[in-house]
Amino acid sequence: MIYFDNAASSKICDEAMEEFQRVGQVVYGNPHAKSKMGMMAEEEVKRSIEILARGLKCNEDELVITSCATESNNMFLRGVVKRYKRKGNHIITQKSEHSAVKSVAKQLENEGVEVTYLDVDEKGVISIQQLKESLKENTILVSIMHVNNETGAIMPIEEIVSEVKKYNKEILVHVDGVQSFGKLDVNFRKLNIDGYSFTGHKIHAPKGVGGLIIKDGVKVESLIYGGNHQNGRRAGTVNVSGVASLAKAFETWEKNKDEYTVKVGEVKKELLKLLDELDGVVVNGNLENSSNYLLNLSFEHIRGEVLLHGLSELEIYVSTGTSCNSTGTGMLTTYGYSKERILGSVRFGLSRYNTVEEARETVEEIKKLVGTLRKFKKR
Amino acid sequence: MIYFDNAASSKICDEAMEEFQRVGQVVYGNPHAKSKMGMMAEEEVKRSIEILARGLKCNEDELVITSCATESNNMFLRGVVKRYKRKGNHIITQKSEHSAVKSVAKQLENEGVEVTYLDVDEKGVISIQQLKESLKENTILVSIMHVNNETGAIMPIEEIVSEVKKYNKEILVHVDGVQSFGKLDVNFRKLNIDGYSFTGHKIHAPKGVGGLIIKDGVKVESLIYGGNHQNGRRAGTVNVSGVASLAKAFETWEKNKDEYTVKVGEVKKELLKLLDELDGVVVNGNLENSSNYLLNLSFEHIRGEVLLHGLSELEIYVSTGTSCNSTGTGMLTTYGYSKERILGSVRFGLSRYNTVEEARETVEEIKKLVGTLRKFKKR
Repeated sequence: MIYFDNAASSKICDEAMEEFQRVGQVVYGNPHAKSKMGMMAEEEVKRSIEILARGLKCNEDELVITSCATESNNMFLRGVVKRYKRKGNHIITQKSEHSAVKSVAKQLENEGVEVTYLDVDEKGVISIQQLKESLKENTILVSIMHVNNETGAIMPIEEIVSEVKKYNKEILVHVDGVQSFGKLDVNFRKLNIDGYSFTGHKIHAPKGVGGLIIKDGVKVESLIYGGNHQNGRRAGTVNVSGVASLAKAFETWEKNKDEYTVKVGEVKKELLKLLDELDGVVVNGNLENSSNYLLNLSFEHIRGEVLLHGLSELEIYVSTGTSCNSTGTGMLTTYGYSKERILGSVRFGLSRYNTVEEARETVEEIKKLVGTLRKFKKR
Repeated sequence: MIYFDNAASSKICDEAMEEFQRVGQVVYGNPHAKSKMGMMAEEEVKRSIEILARGLKCNEDELVITSCATESNNMFLRGVVKRYKRKGNHIITQKSEHSAVKSVAKQLENEGVEVTYLDVDEKGVISIQQLKESLKENTILVSIMHVNNETGAIMPIEEIVSEVKKYNKEILVHVDGVQSFGKLDVNFRKLNIDGYSFTGHKIHAPKGVGGLIIKDGVKVESLIYGGNHQNGRRAGTVNVSGVASLAKAFETWEKNKDEYTVKVGEVKKELLKLLDELDGVVVNGNLENSSNYLLNLSFEHIRGEVLLHGLSELEIYVSTGTSCNSTGTGMLTTYGYSKERILGSVRFGLSRYNTVEEARETVEEIKKLVGTLRKFKKR
């Protein structure tokens, strides 16, 4: 089995699994309980937050544990709109965001918020010029993803923040960091952003746990009310074994990130040989400023979905992008590509567990499949 | 170590842990992915929902997977208020609800919703008469917990539903079932309710996964927007290993529930010997119509918190109730008890892993501690 769909979800690594089990079967108290068992559970939460905060360069009390990045995005966008409505009613995002941001923006729009969706170019990047022209007196929030989940295109966050804060330093900037967390070096303080969403299950931690960094002083209304957990910001018993497991997966990456980056880079390079060894293959997005963990290719005259199913039969797992569907209305339409190119696209989501040999085998199988499919098409 | 704080959180049982590991390390695809790996993950979700729906007697498509019961409660209460606002603006709940319902009601009140909080008597039960008097033309929702989390008092849900539906069958009834799920037989259809919230970590499943049953035809606005997961009702990648683990814990209970009920009943009976063997001990709530899994006692002239810490030193873990604090403003105030009785209360949260021997040892240690503390007080 060869798994190239890590951008969708990844295997829980042994380190994270052991941590999950230890906490879930030994330190299983409620962190709000007053007994020693409760205090031990609370210690696990604190320790996990310490690890994450140290790595992401934020304060510990800026970190809220959530159930996933979708929840984090919902919390930040809706929570900011609710708390800053007297300041303004306009938010800016961009067209190639994940639905976990775009759907929230659409819903807020339905509720009366004014939303600007910036364009992206054929490389998957927004125009700073258009951003500058979109900033208005009533703008309260700009939300731009760090790394695009379909192509790996990296957004110029520093430049975005610089322009936004130059215009009005009170405008908040939020970053959906699902594909940068535990993959790129993220320095919350240096990025100078106000919110950062992330999740565990893309970096070999379990599903069901994620986080949101809220810059000190920024007011975000809660999404989930209840007990006074996490300083009243997110009610519900903290997922102790989940966050411990997430911290362990993150720590494991941190310790070995140089090695992993090189390794994943070599796998990507091997997959890129498809460009030389097969006609009519193009890169979607760009190669210059993109994540090593993602690669998106289009195959001329081939339906990505057909290729996906052919590979799936061989137990080689890729994807055709999160929201792309047979009518070609997926995210890549925002890149201005032709319908054929969009329908011909395949996404490879890499992880440290992939090998160059796996990439080699995948390239060979794709060459065979594409050859057969194109011959079939010609007849 | 003796753990009597299972109502706060419980140990992940081996069956649930194995299931979590199997899914998280073998079937780790994204259930939305189109490859075979994605389909296998989707199968796990379907199978888990089947188990839960069959046990709880609801349709599979009535079940939404959430991150916890707090989220479920938030989703149902807020989601109903949002969708039925044209019908009315009045909801009814009761004073001894968990903060996961009460705080949502308070928040909705801040936003302009009219909320009636019914009283409870000294047994922890609402008055059907007061409920009847509170129903109004603009009432859209009644939310009453199944089993009180501090005392185990069981609310007369059938009678409540009958009166509400008799008044106006369009008024929705929601039940926070955190302390009944996997402990009492719950028949969603027979209860004739419209919403039921539950969570995993009180029944030996992991933290971070719960559910909400929404009766077919009832409209509940989403709390979390994003991808079209779970028919657009709850966005965010489904916690596949979490729900598989939850289903396994629930199934394990279902298969052995008669045995467990007897076992837990014997442990409770043993703890109740405190009433005979020590002076000045009273039951909070009631014994006639309460859950075997909960027992709440008050000790005259003793601070529950002091007893808790004394027992904690001996590695015997109990609690003083979820929200009770040193000023005596906890839930038991709603039972009309004296401040002394409230401050003297201790909660025992039982599980199938507790033994009669543990109860015996706990009784002995409490007798010693109470004796010492009372002597100290007299001097």
